[in-house]
Amino acid sequence: MSPTPESASPGGEPLTIAQIADRAGVSIATVSKVVNGRDNVAPETRELVEDLIRRHGYRRRKRPLKSNPLVEVVFHELRGLYPIEVVNGVTRAARRHRLGVVVSELGGRHAPGRGWVEDVLARRPLGVIAVFTELADEQRERLRTRGVPLVLVDPAEDPGPEAASVGASNWNGGLRATRHLLSLGHRRIAAITGPPRLLSARARLDGYRAAMDLAGAPVDPALVRVSDYRVESARRHAVELLRLSDPPTAIIAGDDGGALGVYQAAAAARLRIPEDLSVVGYDDLPMASWSIPPLTTVRQPLLEMAAAATDMVIALAREEPLPRRRVELATELLVRDSTAPPAPRGR
Amino acid sequence: MSPTPESASPGGEPLTIAQIADRAGVSIATVSKVVNGRDNVAPETRELVEDLIRRHGYRRRKRPLKSNPLVEVVFHELRGLYPIEVVNGVTRAARRHRLGVVVSELGGRHAPGRGWVEDVLARRPLGVIAVFTELADEQRERLRTRGVPLVLVDPAEDPGPEAASVGASNWNGGLRATRHLLSLGHRRIAAITGPPRLLSARARLDGYRAAMDLAGAPVDPALVRVSDYRVESARRHAVELLRLSDPPTAIIAGDDGGALGVYQAAAAARLRIPEDLSVVGYDDLPMASWSIPPLTTVRQPLLEMAAAATDMVIALAREEPLPRRRVELATELLVRDSTAPPAPRGR
Repeated sequence: MSPTPESASPGGEPLTIAQIADRAGVSIATVSKVVNGRDNVAPETRELVEDLIRRHGYRRRKRPLKSNPLVEVVFHELRGLYPIEVVNGVTRAARRHRLGVVVSELGGRHAPGRGWVEDVLARRPLGVIAVFTELADEQRERLRTRGVPLVLVDPAEDPGPEAASVGASNWNGGLRATRHLLSLGHRRIAAITGPPRLLSARARLDGYRAAMDLAGAPVDPALVRVSDYRVESARRHAVELLRLSDPPTAIIAGDDGGALGVYQAAAAARLRIPEDLSVVGYDDLPMASWSIPPLTTVRQPLLEMAAAATDMVIALAREEPLPRRRVELATELLVRDSTAPPAPRGR
Repeated sequence: MSPTPESASPGGEPLTIAQIADRAGVSIATVSKVVNGRDNVAPETRELVEDLIRRHGYRRRKRPLKSNPLVEVVFHELRGLYPIEVVNGVTRAARRHRLGVVVSELGGRHAPGRGWVEDVLARRPLGVIAVFTELADEQRERLRTRGVPLVLVDPAEDPGPEAASVGASNWNGGLRATRHLLSLGHRRIAAITGPPRLLSARARLDGYRAAMDLAGAPVDPALVRVSDYRVESARRHAVELLRLSDPPTAIIAGDDGGALGVYQAAAAARLRIPEDLSVVGYDDLPMASWSIPPLTTVRQPLLEMAAAATDMVIALAREEPLPRRRVELATELLVRDSTAPPAPRGR
């Protein structure tokens, strides 16, 4: 929201804490409490101060508040092996700078009391890494006005040119997975994707479509299934795909967990992998190599992505220039034993 | 180490910061740096001050150093799904008290610079939860002298009567898993255990032996395999077990990951689970229900254990009395599809 002319401070400068206190008609101590995420402030006062900060910006004291040696990592949900890879990447990079890593999730939004962002501000971290999650505009704004840098990993939505973010080349990943199956002779290739509002899911599906198109293979809409990243959902989609009168000979899952769901559906239908059905995953979490048979998958370098995000958040906290605000790391197809040429038709 | 008479402070009282500074011949600021884990102190000075604190104890100022709203969770290694369950349990309990959760691992002991304990002390957390890990005596001592309470979850070694700890009834878990297999008619039951220096691994194995003994089934030493908690190690042990001239008809793995290794070995030997081989896991991580077939396992309530440890560490930080210093939560056998009566002999 840009300041309206009549409410702008002289020269459009952000307000100091004293100016905010003056305009809000409260004490400097009260403004300080709001700025630092303390909770003993009346909701209306908090809103008034927040509104002034939102409209005019907030100029920190000359000697900025010392942040604590902490990096915050927030997940949408702490579930599966994905977060462990990311936490490993962040802790390794953070250790070099002697920073503690605070892990939280947004899943508990129904939690009583203060919200996630207030708790973060109260801890005064060096910066925040948001992983595969959607912070509300208001949450980003609160971090921004307090000078807490934010880096997005695998951002759910388009982070915009302003935001710093790290991702993987999802479109390429989708393309390579599909080309691998095409090169084995598959034409009826199904895709079980993540929700299309997630950019990464959309990019992978577009890569799949591009590969099919380039190979002159038609995309049968019945073979494209919109799922979420849950094993059980993928299993249900795979069961339905395998019951089609003209079923796919290969399925690309949205993630490695989804591939597990496909394995379950194949087992239930008494189909052998890869003889009767080829399966490709996405992520290359440890379970990909533990699967029976080991899973062909697109490796997403989660550890490196997390480490890169940590380095970026530290650079931002030190007000060093970032070489680029968007870092995209390469994905890689790992061919294991879950893919093979399709069985001759008419089984 | 108990104080020697000649070095004890008058009345055996712990020393104040001023007394330590006086005896060490350094400034109070220097002692404060050591106490608070800062790093700009010469190694010899640090050692001298640490030694005085170790021998006499350290009396905190009347107004104790305010701790930050942080709980530390330290793992031996951040690997697999186990840490995610624990972090979930801690964050849920910590959120009620608006505490941030700092996650670290000891795996990086080769990391340069300060050690893990110095970084923890510098963050001044409310307390530390050590999960399935062995803190060195010196690390525990450093936490103790700074008044940072420590709670052990699933302690690797006997925590001693002083230490606060949370565990699960491992002996019962081993007993129930074995009794379940015995009741199905198995007699040749193999156990792939964790390292015997880990109390939990030893307790589970003892439960197995007790069940066998009570049923009058002999324990064949060739069927007891000492492993670690790695999928690959369990796989290798299972391969060897299945190659015995009189192979087991059932295998109890040390954890769910180990059960996966047994699944791999069975697949390689073209044995069907449960028709040709019954398998039992331990933990009930999400992968247990995703396995094909779903895994019969002993549920360890990791989430509840972690939450209980968090409540304990908060109580200790508030100097509230603990109802008990050792909390042991019940394990539970979950029968899924990986166990069945043994196949008739002579296959």
